[in-house]
Amino acid sequence: IRKGFPEVIFCGGKTPQQVKEIAFNMYKNGSDVLGTRASHEHFEAVRELLEKAVYYETARIISIRNTPPRKTKGIIGVVAAGTSDLAVAEEAAVTAELMGNTVKRFYDVGVAGLHRLLDKIEEIRECRVIIAIAGMEGALPTVLGGLVGSPIIAVPTSVGYGANFHGLSALLAMLNSCASGVSVVNIDNGFGAAYSASLINKIGEEGK
Amino acid sequence: IRKGFPEVIFCGGKTPQQVKEIAFNMYKNGSDVLGTRASHEHFEAVRELLEKAVYYETARIISIRNTPPRKTKGIIGVVAAGTSDLAVAEEAAVTAELMGNTVKRFYDVGVAGLHRLLDKIEEIRECRVIIAIAGMEGALPTVLGGLVGSPIIAVPTSVGYGANFHGLSALLAMLNSCASGVSVVNIDNGFGAAYSASLINKIGEEGK
Amino acid sequence: IRKGFPEVIFCGGKTPQQVKEIAFNMYKNGSDVLGTRASHEHFEAVRELLEKAVYYETARIISIRNTPPRKTKGIIGVVAAGTSDLAVAEEAAVTAELMGNTVKRFYDVGVAGLHRLLDKIEEIRECRVIIAIAGMEGALPTVLGGLVGSPIIAVPTSVGYGANFHGLSALLAMLNSCASGVSVVNIDNGFGAAYSASLINKIGEEGK
Amino acid sequence: IRKGFPEVIFCGGKTPQQVKEIAFNMYKNGSDVLGTRASHEHFEAVRELLEKAVYYETARIISIRNTPPRKTKGIIGVVAAGTSDLAVAEEAAVTAELMGNTVKRFYDVGVAGLHRLLDKIEEIRECRVIIAIAGMEGALPTVLGGLVGSPIIAVPTSVGYGANFHGLSALLAMLNSCASGVSVVNIDNGFGAAYSASLINKIGEEGK
Amino acid sequence: IRKGFPEVIFCGGKTPQQVKEIAFNMYKNGSDVLGTRASHEHFEAVRELLEKAVYYETARIISIRNTPPRKTKGIIGVVAAGTSDLAVAEEAAVTAELMGNTVKRFYDVGVAGLHRLLDKIEEIRECRVIIAIAGMEGALPTVLGGLVGSPIIAVPTSVGYGANFHGLSALLAMLNSCASGVSVVNIDNGFGAAYSASLINKIGEEGK
Amino acid sequence: IRKGFPEVIFCGGKTPQQVKEIAFNMYKNGSDVLGTRASHEHFEAVRELLEKAVYYETARIISIRNTPPRKTKGIIGVVAAGTSDLAVAEEAAVTAELMGNTVKRFYDVGVAGLHRLLDKIEEIRECRVIIAIAGMEGALPTVLGGLVGSPIIAVPTSVGYGANFHGLSALLAMLNSCASGVSVVNIDNGFGAAYSASLINKIGEEGK
Amino acid sequence: IRKGFPEVIFCGGKTPQQVKEIAFNMYKNGSDVLGTRASHEHFEAVRELLEKAVYYETARIISIRNTPPRKTKGIIGVVAAGTSDLAVAEEAAVTAELMGNTVKRFYDVGVAGLHRLLDKIEEIRECRVIIAIAGMEGALPTVLGGLVGSPIIAVPTSVGYGANFHGLSALLAMLNSCASGVSVVNIDNGFGAAYSASLINKIGEEGK
Amino acid sequence: IRKGFPEVIFCGGKTPQQVKEIAFNMYKNGSDVLGTRASHEHFEAVRELLEKAVYYETARIISIRNTPPRKTKGIIGVVAAGTSDLAVAEEAAVTAELMGNTVKRFYDVGVAGLHRLLDKIEEIRECRVIIAIAGMEGALPTVLGGLVGSPIIAVPTSVGYGANFHGLSALLAMLNSCASGVSVVNIDNGFGAAYSASLINKIGEEGK
Ligand SMILES: Nc1ncnc2c1ncn2[C@@H]1O[C@H](COP(=O)(O)O)[C@@H](O)[C@H]1O
Ligand SMILES: Nc1ncnc2c1ncn2[C@@H]1O[C@H](COP(=O)(O)O)[C@@H](O)[C@H]1O
Ligand SMILES: Nc1ncnc2c1ncn2[C@@H]1O[C@H](COP(=O)(O)O)[C@@H](O)[C@H]1O
Ligand SMILES: Nc1ncnc2c1ncn2[C@@H]1O[C@H](COP(=O)(O)O)[C@@H](O)[C@H]1O
Ligand SMILES: [Mg+2]
Ligand SMILES: [Mg+2]
Ligand SMILES: [Mg+2]
Ligand SMILES: [Mg+2]
Ligand SMILES: [Mg+2]
Ligand SMILES: [Mg+2]
Ligand SMILES: [Mg+2]
Ligand SMILES: [Mg+2]
Repeated sequence: IRKGFPEVIFCGGKTPQQVKEIAFNMYKNGSDVLGTRASHEHFEAVRELLEKAVYYETARIISIRNTPPRKTKGIIGVVAAGTSDLAVAEEAAVTAELMGNTVKRFYDVGVAGLHRLLDKIEEIRECRVIIAIAGMEGALPTVLGGLVGSPIIAVPTSVGYGANFHGLSALLAMLNSCASGVSVVNIDNGFGAAYSASLINKIGEEGK
Repeated sequence: IRKGFPEVIFCGGKTPQQVKEIAFNMYKNGSDVLGTRASHEHFEAVRELLEKAVYYETARIISIRNTPPRKTKGIIGVVAAGTSDLAVAEEAAVTAELMGNTVKRFYDVGVAGLHRLLDKIEEIRECRVIIAIAGMEGALPTVLGGLVGSPIIAVPTSVGYGANFHGLSALLAMLNSCASGVSVVNIDNGFGAAYSASLINKIGEEGK
Repeated sequence: IRKGFPEVIFCGGKTPQQVKEIAFNMYKNGSDVLGTRASHEHFEAVRELLEKAVYYETARIISIRNTPPRKTKGIIGVVAAGTSDLAVAEEAAVTAELMGNTVKRFYDVGVAGLHRLLDKIEEIRECRVIIAIAGMEGALPTVLGGLVGSPIIAVPTSVGYGANFHGLSALLAMLNSCASGVSVVNIDNGFGAAYSASLINKIGEEGK
Repeated sequence: IRKGFPEVIFCGGKTPQQVKEIAFNMYKNGSDVLGTRASHEHFEAVRELLEKAVYYETARIISIRNTPPRKTKGIIGVVAAGTSDLAVAEEAAVTAELMGNTVKRFYDVGVAGLHRLLDKIEEIRECRVIIAIAGMEGALPTVLGGLVGSPIIAVPTSVGYGANFHGLSALLAMLNSCASGVSVVNIDNGFGAAYSASLINKIGEEGK
Repeated sequence: IRKGFPEVIFCGGKTPQQVKEIAFNMYKNGSDVLGTRASHEHFEAVRELLEKAVYYETARIISIRNTPPRKTKGIIGVVAAGTSDLAVAEEAAVTAELMGNTVKRFYDVGVAGLHRLLDKIEEIRECRVIIAIAGMEGALPTVLGGLVGSPIIAVPTSVGYGANFHGLSALLAMLNSCASGVSVVNIDNGFGAAYSASLINKIGEEGK
Repeated sequence: IRKGFPEVIFCGGKTPQQVKEIAFNMYKNGSDVLGTRASHEHFEAVRELLEKAVYYETARIISIRNTPPRKTKGIIGVVAAGTSDLAVAEEAAVTAELMGNTVKRFYDVGVAGLHRLLDKIEEIRECRVIIAIAGMEGALPTVLGGLVGSPIIAVPTSVGYGANFHGLSALLAMLNSCASGVSVVNIDNGFGAAYSASLINKIGEEGK
Repeated sequence: IRKGFPEVIFCGGKTPQQVKEIAFNMYKNGSDVLGTRASHEHFEAVRELLEKAVYYETARIISIRNTPPRKTKGIIGVVAAGTSDLAVAEEAAVTAELMGNTVKRFYDVGVAGLHRLLDKIEEIRECRVIIAIAGMEGALPTVLGGLVGSPIIAVPTSVGYGANFHGLSALLAMLNSCASGVSVVNIDNGFGAAYSASLINKIGEEGK
Repeated sequence: IRKGFPEVIFCGGKTPQQVKEIAFNMYKNGSDVLGTRASHEHFEAVRELLEKAVYYETARIISIRNTPPRKTKGIIGVVAAGTSDLAVAEEAAVTAELMGNTVKRFYDVGVAGLHRLLDKIEEIRECRVIIAIAGMEGALPTVLGGLVGSPIIAVPTSVGYGANFHGLSALLAMLNSCASGVSVVNIDNGFGAAYSASLINKIGEEGK
């Protein structure tokens, strides 16, 4: 029912053989295919049957396309603090691109180094939707929420240790954000954030 | 920075006297004012100074306006299961209306009585954004996510008892939704859902 | 005291040698034997002594029989969402079969793709007992509970990540089901669900 | 879809006025009506319109009937430890009776006084389904599970203090029961246990 | 062993009569006395015997002094977001003052309104120690930590609802702060933060 | 201060080299030495220097003695359900023996097979102190507590899966035991239970 | 089976009328009766029928005796930190006395004021069993465990706020004590500690 | 903004290649570099480019310096219980030294062996700031807090098992310390404690 989007395989917990078969069937039915949480092994298996498959290493994403992705006028901004959150940020950014969105990345703008964030804030304000990714204390969406007027999809990451409890600290912080306009997806769910952001961005394209 | 929105007071934990003063100052500065989690006592205090104040009882909202709310072409759908979630649903619906949105309410459409939901599904599909409210097992956003193409803001409610743990069951269910396009706000946070939905709806109005 | 049921070994945390000995003793005393959570190594060890042992790979079950399983008239329906829950679903289905029940499998009927579920609903309604298996938001038993009149044993699975907390999200959702007629077993406990379903199914066979 | 059962109102969190109206509408449509978690105030309001309404105080249940309840041949046994769990036990027992079941109560048979339980065990064994209710360490369903051959629906209660965490100790104990044939409902959910037990008992009546 | 500090009574959970007696004994032994979490009732009881007792209403503190408080050169900055955290902020500020410190209050500087915080940042930088108080997402200490060079004592507050879990969200956020130089005290423990800040401030006074 | 007891090394998290050195120093100072949570590697290292070292494999204990253990008249009973709890049960039993106690083992007496427990109950009653070890629902100490008059030290084990949460279910069950005379040690802490039981047993030896 | 002990009523959650009847029946059967968690209302009701009933206010205990309590030679030491833990400490101390033990109270000896504890340590060492009661960080049993040779029953209390989580902090601290010879009962369970201590003390009296 | 401190790399979760590049860039810009949570592999990679890099094995720290560290007059005391907490203690101690502080180590002074702690207490009192490190029941900061007048930074460690829940027991104990002057950092965060302690120590150096 959501047209123009690729079909998606969650590769986590599937064998390379399973992914290969599912991807092949989807592709030969004319769909574009997107595999998330894909390892090198998954990719190797898929490439045996589908030579044009592409692997985004940091994002852990496999893409196989029948149709070239469109490019929206509206921009999805992917904002993240540091190198530790990169895998999740790239899962979000690459997913959004493969769903036809124009994406801008703003990395290394954590709240503990506020000036780097403020230096970019004008550019971030021009984005139609923002994906804000942060681990540990998860403060980035709140600070952004006070500075921009676009809807923000917040992604807590499991980066950290100790009382981080595998992402719980960032998750709770984001759900309790004192800034408005912030909604939240599951810990490490870059894909889900990109999907929601994509639906929102398309509202602006089409005027719906 | 977010124009056309009223200024908001969270009345919970404030005295009637405090709310009255804050509301008065905002209003005389030309703002529209919206008070959430407001009791009758809060309202009585505010009305002493501001006669045109209006109280939405089920929604627990006070509104005082300098400017009449606009009406968007795009619709925000507020979908909820039963009478128990009504307070949260109305907090979302009234907030969205006071922020200038056209709102449609779809109540009594819980997933345990699927036919009532399916009967309304065409109408729900026409909404540009959907706010899905559910307590207990929190399944409504997931079922909706598989049936509609609009972005969904999910609101878990604290309705329930025992292993509900004051809304934790619905919160976790929504964060783990196997449907895509769902993002989540805090337990019972009808206001926050309406705010995010409102930002998204405006993208469609303006084409941004 | 529960006649006609095989004796059961929980192989998890036991060495192949231990399982082999326990199985051998049970079998030579005339019992049918069922080993759950069995690895290939467990099976290899058992087969050394008991050649007729059978291994159900996906279900991780070893079966060694003195007597052929009966077949009930009443059907246990095993309903599950996707490939990720397959191991748990098969543990339930194979256990139920080895306890003498007629079993029907309904896989790939998750609530986010409601039409596949509705397509099968008449067939599911004919089952005397239903085992409903779901991970993540665990909504399947609730949706089923509103559509069928048979008792439902719900099995939360640990499939997922992040705020899934190893099955907690599905467990809480199922315990808080707003549909009636749903009771719940431990996370990933396909065996336990089959056992309860089997006791219930036999009530119908025998009229008790 | 589940015939012969009364319509149910969960009175908790509803005003007396709301309950009165819902009950009246259900009753005049020809349904039998069952109100759970009902206070004296709920009952007083209902009786104003419906004189034949009956109030079960310990069970906190209101019943208004158009048709007399049937009596099954099969027995539902309600087994509980002590006076503290009485409210939940009676919610289960009265609900089961009002759903047309023959019910036998076995109270004051906690596992710390094993002999009282063993004295009753033959009688308990004759029940077709067993509802086992326990707070604190929640051991009763496990001990019963080893002694009887009927399916057991376990109800954890919130009775206790400290590391009981409002019923969590009993809930976890029951989910982890080392006896087979035990499935679990929400903390304090006597109604839900009776509903499941009732569906199971009817399988035996009808042969289905 | 910590000279120059008043003796402290934690009034929470003590009767007015108990507090009155303890305070009287301490005072007549020559100590200055500080009562925290004191209600009006506590104060009334104490004033019966000790006329010079002073009550700080918002801070819920009783003070009775034999010696006038000193005033340090170094400043303790008490930084807080909004009116909801005022009780905790004042507990910290008044405690610090009564322990002989010069205190500056910076209220209404939450991270969702960054400009108000940045407007004050030069003044905050001049403080020798900072107490940062925040509820909900608890981001304030992290943002401050990136902007100032003084040690920060962070106080999570229980302000909020839902997934705030009575202060857990702010507590975890602060423990996981990605800024360095932040240490944390118990939820709502304004007193404890002031005590630690006071020990630190005195190091600067005395050169130790 | 506790005479006649060996010195103890907790080997978990120490290297073989570290354990070897600590053990050697203790031993040559005339102490008896007990190493818990010891792997084969720890034992091999210790034996290089101390030839008379003995390894208890199931118990994961190393013992090196200067003096032969005494034997008390009073008996410590170690009661456990099944093979899965064996490692913890043996840690308790061997520790108690090496501290000079007469120990009787009662294994395979879980509460789901009550008759095996009742068959042994007279013998268990003769023990001066009882260590009761159970995982999963942790019901054993409660059932025992109703049948015997000796103090019981309960040891929850981490045996189980899913809602067992690594021993939490058994721990909470034991802390909430409705039987009196039960106190609890940490999850899997067979050593600690034996130590406490040993102190108690010695009271009876010496009359103190 | 545990002779010489009174029969016990847990009054919490029972009506005065219920307690009165239970107490009367026990007493006229010749038992001594002990009611814990008893309010003034419980006591008033009991005294109507049983004039010799005695109420221990701080301990919240009702006692009615047919036989005078014995006095053991061995001493149970009840050690507690401060006035806040008094109710739990007295529940333990009075229970122990009514079970025939000689009890010594050591109050106001918290670990943050170590010297008061060390001043009493010789006297504490003479106790045959020690009950150690502490809230908040629950350190007292660990410090004691390093200083004395008697078995210690640790009682965590729910005294505190914030990250105390109603006694969880003290409970976990005590379960993880790095001192040996410590076992733990439920939060605030002074009664249970006294019961276990009493069983242990009697071993020394009788030589068993 | 915090001058004289090295730049810090958290190596956990970074590849050796990443650490090598980051370190090289920092160093050639004139900074001193400190890498925490560094493995041997990280060090090997760094040493390829930066020969003067030094590895502190127990502390898991890499240091590369352009400028020699200063030595403060004021002392930071690092106090820890046993060998298990050594890695965290050394992370704190080495970090503090590399930030220019004079550090004294007090190891093997756990609260269960109070005399070793009391033997050192005069020396500990002379420290300007204290870092107190403890796992399990986390009592050390509380006991120290009652004995010394300096501010204490408490570090809970994840050392332990079972109900330790990966450091939660020590964390909660420290947050609930009944001693004043204690503030807390994340579980195992020796670095963070050293950083805060260092800021405090410098207040005394400079008089600020
Ligand atoms: N990283 C991800 N996290 C959560 N859900 C995902 C992710 N990637 C894909 N999905 C969802 O998983 C579905 C495919 O699951 P499957 O059929 O198991 O391959 C897609 O339709 C998405 O809704
Ligand atoms: N004690 C109870 N606990 C949980 N669910 C209940 C209980 N009593 C009634 N219900 C359910 O609540 C439904 C009625 O809810 P409502 O429409 O809000 O009155 C019934 O159909 C039952 O499924
Ligand atoms: N708000 C507070 N939170 C935590 N501890 C406090 C607070 N106020 C006082 N205290 C501590 O409580 C002690 C007095 O407790 P008490 O003897 O029970 O009155 C003081 O020495 C302080 O260490
Ligand atoms: N299995 C165990 N669990 C808990 N504590 C133990 C265990 N084994 C030994 N201990 C304690 O650990 C202490 C030795 O610790 P360490 O000095 O780190 O080797 C002993 O004195 C015991 O109190
Ligand atoms: Mg961040
Ligand atoms: Mg729902
Ligand atoms: Mg599902
Ligand atoms: Mg029980
Ligand atoms: Mg904040
Ligand atoms: Mg057991
Ligand atoms: Mg204490
Ligand atoms: Mg310690």
